[in-house]
Amino acid sequence: MAEKLGDNIVLVGRKEIMSYVLAVVTQFNAGEKDVIIKARGKAISRAVDIAEIVKRRFVQNLNTGDIVIGTEEIQGDEGPVKVSTIEITLAKQG
Amino acid sequence: MAEKLGDNIVLVGRKEIMSYVLAVVTQFNAGEKDVIIKARGKAISRAVDIAEIVKRRFVQNLNTGDIVIGTEEIQGDEGPVKVSTIEITLAKQG
Repeated sequence: MAEKLGDNIVLVGRKEIMSYVLAVVTQFNAGEKDVIIKARGKAISRAVDIAEIVKRRFVQNLNTGDIVIGTEEIQGDEGPVKVSTIEITLAKQG
Repeated sequence: MAEKLGDNIVLVGRKEIMSYVLAVVTQFNAGEKDVIIKARGKAISRAVDIAEIVKRRFVQNLNTGDIVIGTEEIQGDEGPVKVSTIEITLAKQG
């Protein structure tokens, strides 16, 4: 199962993409009105793929809500490095 | 120079990232109030990096404006394939 940080947050890592799609769909099926997909670095492209796949193929009447980008400092092998981040909110209509 | 589609649109491809950063900075220095960074597929992560680098290091008083994600169908070697897209608007304050 994909890592979950809170009831409605899915953090995208290196597992196969459908694992995260399933995690998001499961949240909505459990009654969540909003699910936030978070990623950083190269996983950002995958986060967008996941949001689009959920919207197009699995959950009806979803809107893309806020999309927030930013920068985080993480500890690399040779000291701190900056990585970009994204948070995509998917929201049920009505 | 990075590919430009309109006066204030920068399309992210496979060139080195600073090439696109420079393209965006050049637009703002030429007086543009908004610059749109567009990317698809794996270049989406790079588009976020470019927006963050421009904001943090090169242009003062920039806001991240609208961020729009979507899906496009492109012609692959074995027929049409769907790719995710992003458009990030950077906007000068005031």
